[in-house]
Amino acid sequence: MSVKIAKFSGFCFGVKRAIKISIEAAMKNHEIITLGPVIHNPQMVEKLAQKGIKSISDYSEIKGRPTIIRSHGVEKGIMAKLQRDNIEIINATCPYVSKTQEYALQLSQEGYQVIILGDKTHPEVIALKSYVEGKAIIVAESFDLPEGKFNKVGIISQTTRRVEDLQDLVKILVPRCEELRVINTICNATSVRQDSTIKLAKDSDLMIVIGGKNSSNTKMLARISDNFVKTFHIETSSEIDKKWLQNKDKIGITAGASTPDWIIVEVYNEILKCVGQIEKLVSEVEDIPGFKEEKNG
Amino acid sequence: MSVKIAKFSGFCFGVKRAIKISIEAAMKNHEIITLGPVIHNPQMVEKLAQKGIKSISDYSEIKGRPTIIRSHGVEKGIMAKLQRDNIEIINATCPYVSKTQEYALQLSQEGYQVIILGDKTHPEVIALKSYVEGKAIIVAESFDLPEGKFNKVGIISQTTRRVEDLQDLVKILVPRCEELRVINTICNATSVRQDSTIKLAKDSDLMIVIGGKNSSNTKMLARISDNFVKTFHIETSSEIDKKWLQNKDKIGITAGASTPDWIIVEVYNEILKCVGQIEKLVSEVEDIPGFKEEKNG
Repeated sequence: MSVKIAKFSGFCFGVKRAIKISIEAAMKNHEIITLGPVIHNPQMVEKLAQKGIKSISDYSEIKGRPTIIRSHGVEKGIMAKLQRDNIEIINATCPYVSKTQEYALQLSQEGYQVIILGDKTHPEVIALKSYVEGKAIIVAESFDLPEGKFNKVGIISQTTRRVEDLQDLVKILVPRCEELRVINTICNATSVRQDSTIKLAKDSDLMIVIGGKNSSNTKMLARISDNFVKTFHIETSSEIDKKWLQNKDKIGITAGASTPDWIIVEVYNEILKCVGQIEKLVSEVEDIPGFKEEKNG
Repeated sequence: MSVKIAKFSGFCFGVKRAIKISIEAAMKNHEIITLGPVIHNPQMVEKLAQKGIKSISDYSEIKGRPTIIRSHGVEKGIMAKLQRDNIEIINATCPYVSKTQEYALQLSQEGYQVIILGDKTHPEVIALKSYVEGKAIIVAESFDLPEGKFNKVGIISQTTRRVEDLQDLVKILVPRCEELRVINTICNATSVRQDSTIKLAKDSDLMIVIGGKNSSNTKMLARISDNFVKTFHIETSSEIDKKWLQNKDKIGITAGASTPDWIIVEVYNEILKCVGQIEKLVSEVEDIPGFKEEKNG
């Protein structure tokens, strides 16, 4: 039996950066808070809490303390309020997300009806739409589009969507607009993780996708993988059920962009223990067959 | 047996305008020339020749005479030469084609790699590409695209293409560009004639498409119609073969945007004569069942 990991999996550039910024800020400050979890991984957020980084959900709880802006960004109005209230801002917004916010503002200022491909309940999208002047249309897929024709449409995407969904949306909109401007804001880390997952899923009997249940990019990896082979989405090794592994010859593992290495290692080792291959346990993610992280952001 | 005509067929706004401009110019001038046929309908061009409008193919043949710019437009360089040589210019370029030329210039000046969906040998496309600063990429369909990734791509289309081809091209380009700006320059007259043809073809046993063999939009109508039912593309009634009509219950007719009414009437009457329905002959295109031209450009 083989257990392989997708070549591109785990932390992306934006998540690594957000954690680094957060920890550095925590070292300088006694009390520090984040408006919502810095990243969508409960286990990593718990580790950050142990370093004094407290996640709150309401602005009123800030009470003058230095505030980390989560990797997903925050609404334009909240940013302005923080500045007005002289709160020290530690901006851990992923630079690709910030760039998408700039495009949202620019497109709407240039007279485009902005359409966002994304999940309207996700913090990245909630923040993103606040940068649109006028009313943004948010669609999770092309079926959500309102009826009718448009003059000038500008499309941006939540950074973690599937490019196929963006393609479908654009295809449907072409005959319905005079002008269509598409900024492909799906980040490279998302694309390479998805491609890598598909490649591994095609060659596996079972896929384990590791990451926060609230992580958009992880959920998307699980959805994509499940198109090819039976797939389980777990947060930690404790969720693995021995039965899943019965009669499986090739097991594939992938992990979302916010999943820390130590959890990947734990899951890998747990699978090996379940199937009795204890002599192959690893201590570093780099030792898992297939894993070779490249500087892909 | 029924013979019906597509609701939207025959002369479009741009062709009507080009003919009107040409005839008015011919009334004022003794000798007048056009650089290439004003429209792509040999029979109409012959009628214009009888009014003193001579079609030439080479600039050197102008010899100082007032010059009509054909509905398809002309290269930027030729326009500049005409001005330099103090030639009186009678511009019969379709305003939708002129608009597309402006977009070609604008997109290239704004740093977009311009991709033109069109037939690289067609005069409209030859003129259009001359407005692109830098090198335009011309594709007849998405398969013609060169390999590789693009930064900023601007797409425009020959005004007479199928919107489905534009959709396919855009869909394929989305993952290959950082930014994609699509100006839907397929004109409304093209779309409504295509939709109208599809509707009639679906309900016919045979389709007759009338128009110049050199007319891009007519060829496209024939191609689209043939996807649904046996279709013949003819220029005049003399090409009709009685055998085509044998055992056909529902015959549909459509005509390209450069096909004059009198040819449509001749074809309609010829079909009725072939099947012995002489009592139903018409003298105006408006009398053909199904035809109801609306101001759709």
